[in-house]
Amino acid sequence: MPPEPLTPDRILEATEDVLRRFGPAKATVVDVARALGVSHGSVYRHFPSKAALREAVTERWLDQSHAALSQIARAAGPTPQRLRDWLAALFAAKRAKAGGDPELFATYMVLAGESSEVVDRHIDTVVGQLAQIIEEGVGKGELSLPADTEPAVTARAVWDATCRFHDPAYATDWGDESIHPAFDAVCALVLRGLGG
Amino acid sequence: MPPEPLTPDRILEATEDVLRRFGPAKATVVDVARALGVSHGSVYRHFPSKAALREAVTERWLDQSHAALSQIARAAGPTPQRLRDWLAALFAAKRAKAGGDPELFATYMVLAGESSEVVDRHIDTVVGQLAQIIEEGVGKGELSLPADTEPAVTARAVWDATCRFHDPAYATDWGDESIHPAFDAVCALVLRGLGG
Repeated sequence: MPPEPLTPDRILEATEDVLRRFGPAKATVVDVARALGVSHGSVYRHFPSKAALREAVTERWLDQSHAALSQIARAAGPTPQRLRDWLAALFAAKRAKAGGDPELFATYMVLAGESSEVVDRHIDTVVGQLAQIIEEGVGKGELSLPADTEPAVTARAVWDATCRFHDPAYATDWGDESIHPAFDAVCALVLRGLGG
Repeated sequence: MPPEPLTPDRILEATEDVLRRFGPAKATVVDVARALGVSHGSVYRHFPSKAALREAVTERWLDQSHAALSQIARAAGPTPQRLRDWLAALFAAKRAKAGGDPELFATYMVLAGESSEVVDRHIDTVVGQLAQIIEEGVGKGELSLPADTEPAVTARAVWDATCRFHDPAYATDWGDESIHPAFDAVCALVLRGLGG
């Protein structure tokens, strides 16, 4: 059987494994190459530096939730419910990541702290999805904007207003039962603020 | 001149000085007593342990903003504007603390992390002020609650929805100019969510 081709995806998966095993402080490109049975030069052909590799694996991790959220953003049906579903899906995805594998979550928190550009790009993408739902809702007369604002500004306000339910800084609260009524109360307030 | 009597307030002021000079890891009750020119036994007569002293100084620091906020909460005039003023005053007080003396702010962040009960009590007090404004607004027909909620629940939702503008976890954002339009957009959304 010929060896599997060395794709960026295989390298990123191996990188996640290595990060999980050695932690973010100790994991090196040589560890990743060894895990794949290739030379570190082969890894560098795909990712020119350790920093580039760490950024790419962070981006991949952050983007895992995009596809599912984007599907909700583009779904049919009333936009107020869709906005709520989207916020609930985001919160569920974050809770699952933080609670399912807390050590890997902590590792990615360290990595995200190193790559603010990657994180900003990720936030722009998801806030863009929010703006898309809001804009559609305004167009259909199901939602309305606070006076003198634009969908993009209001989308960012919705993002900021719900930060307790997606910002990893609050991950320790997410296992507590009281987080669910708190989420419902903020959603109700925000949706009402959008006339929904 | 007789020596100044040793009051809890004098001890707490000296404790803040000592914390500022030595940092939260090194500051001891003996340092505080030395700064006051008294025995450590005299300090222990007011605060039975180092932990009790640290909690008291944390509470004093957190409560510094209460008086001003409470005055706004009880002021005359339309409640929507008052709610906005209250949120703006809270944000301004936090920004001043974080930006004015970042080292002392960091010190108090360490202390607050040790005293979750003190922090919870502080949050209960300020969220209580929010609930008071909201309740008054509902009574006067100036504000209204999302369906099936109570003023206390909605007050907590307003607190959660504005966390980017009072939670020290976001202190690094507060020096950026873009924080002000972000604050305005969240306030507009929240006030509209309260029918204000």
